[in-house]
Amino acid sequence: MTTGSKDLIFAADLGGTHLRVATVDEHGKILFRAKQHTPDGNDPNGIVDAIVRAVNEYRTSADDASLKAVSVVVPGTVKAEEGTVVKAPNLPCLDGFPLATALTNKLGVPAILENDANAAAVGELWQGAAQGCRTIICVTLGTGVGGGIILDGELWRGVDGAAAEIGHMCVDPFGGVACTCGSRGCLEVFASATAIVRMTREASPRHPDSLLQASGNLTAQAIFEAGLKGDELALEIFRRMGVYLGIGLANLINILNPEMIVIAGGVVNGWDLFEKYMRQEVEERAFPLVRVKIVRAKCGDDAGLLGAARLAI
Amino acid sequence: MTTGSKDLIFAADLGGTHLRVATVDEHGKILFRAKQHTPDGNDPNGIVDAIVRAVNEYRTSADDASLKAVSVVVPGTVKAEEGTVVKAPNLPCLDGFPLATALTNKLGVPAILENDANAAAVGELWQGAAQGCRTIICVTLGTGVGGGIILDGELWRGVDGAAAEIGHMCVDPFGGVACTCGSRGCLEVFASATAIVRMTREASPRHPDSLLQASGNLTAQAIFEAGLKGDELALEIFRRMGVYLGIGLANLINILNPEMIVIAGGVVNGWDLFEKYMRQEVEERAFPLVRVKIVRAKCGDDAGLLGAARLAI
Repeated sequence: MTTGSKDLIFAADLGGTHLRVATVDEHGKILFRAKQHTPDGNDPNGIVDAIVRAVNEYRTSADDASLKAVSVVVPGTVKAEEGTVVKAPNLPCLDGFPLATALTNKLGVPAILENDANAAAVGELWQGAAQGCRTIICVTLGTGVGGGIILDGELWRGVDGAAAEIGHMCVDPFGGVACTCGSRGCLEVFASATAIVRMTREASPRHPDSLLQASGNLTAQAIFEAGLKGDELALEIFRRMGVYLGIGLANLINILNPEMIVIAGGVVNGWDLFEKYMRQEVEERAFPLVRVKIVRAKCGDDAGLLGAARLAI
Repeated sequence: MTTGSKDLIFAADLGGTHLRVATVDEHGKILFRAKQHTPDGNDPNGIVDAIVRAVNEYRTSADDASLKAVSVVVPGTVKAEEGTVVKAPNLPCLDGFPLATALTNKLGVPAILENDANAAAVGELWQGAAQGCRTIICVTLGTGVGGGIILDGELWRGVDGAAAEIGHMCVDPFGGVACTCGSRGCLEVFASATAIVRMTREASPRHPDSLLQASGNLTAQAIFEAGLKGDELALEIFRRMGVYLGIGLANLINILNPEMIVIAGGVVNGWDLFEKYMRQEVEERAFPLVRVKIVRAKCGDDAGLLGAARLAI
């Protein structure tokens, strides 16, 4: 629980459901961690207070409690240079809120913010699958689909902090599936955990013998496990998801010509079921000249915390 | 024909059909220009000799013939840092050829290479529609569809020099139209001059009264002119082209969040017929937070020459 390092960062990964915190040293080692429910309510100060309490609990428990900075990962668009949340669809109380300033004022250390998928990309570059690379795209397949783009070692955030919205790249413009963003046919409606469950429900009437017919509470993980047992419905869904993911990755390759694409997020558990179809589409659609590695993420749930720490260092 | 400037660049825009050359001063002023057919044949030295002859003709004609550099724009993928052509589909004799070194050896001045669409983006940023911007995407709608991406003032070439292949972004994966790149449903098969002619031919049986039925040698320009006269076939094609272009632009916005998108190339003549449909798709599909200007290019055919000169300066 204690460390003598002078470069200790307090990282907080603020999700719609959980607030996960950790202290991370300059070598990417996680020394302390804790997890709680994200505070409810419409008051951004509830979130500020939860992070402040977590920092103070750590300070109380540690012998050497000198923190260099606090770095918070937010599920939404941020203005990183100002430390302000622009829009967080799952935590709307934070929209427009200067979270970094609020934390600095209460904690007396510098605070920074970053978008969750951007931080995950930085985490994978620093400590995960993309170590040694300079130019990567990290695609996070979770409840939604997010992305982080690192070009020649630098996070590309775009002029409004809204770059790398890879989940809202259109991969089937006339397919008719509406997305929460207002468009339709976005990658998110085919490759997120939510999409896998939806597509399974939609296809289940064609598979009356599926193992999944008995599942009351259908999850992407349960569908993956059924696929491992050879369930045709589950296999069809992961095949379809892999095709759409491959179409999206080929677009990213043709636009940015990265060194590596890292696939992260909970849905990557289904890798063995979708990998082949994803690679086939990339092979057919990506510009023939390029060499790009497509790999699974390695940092798991810690990617965001590690990326947050790296950005603060 | 003469200048006393010490920063004169000899720019050459090497197309599949024409070789256009110009001298450009440090302020972007074009002082001398010439145009000839691109040499036929399978020998890259024919192309080297044509450029060398053009430079020497200029040197003979000019009082002050001191050139600082030669900068060549190539219709294909280049390794800019090595001055080597990787692949030029319309000039295959150049594949793998160290064109910059060959020119430097014969001319005694430094020579550089750049991809044509990348150079056009630089030209529009320097002297055209994107003056004052830092982060733009230039989409060139010509015989094919090319692109150039400038992020925070720097051309993004990708790790293999193959970034910004915007024409090969997929905008209709299951639409069935095969592309020369090996994929299908690429932007190029809907938004290039070639595509406009093909789509018009395909749709013409449904429009027996179209003005275009009498056209033996159908061109994108003739289709545009028929559209200006209210021809339904022509209007349908430009509407369709605008929809697909808008889908592609929304993807670029969601991935890169640029300040501006510049639409260049001969097909931009049809702007008044496709603009509305392009903007509608962008409005529906681009991430709501971003502000981006979508504008017509201003440098016309000179964008590549100007960009080449800027890159050499």
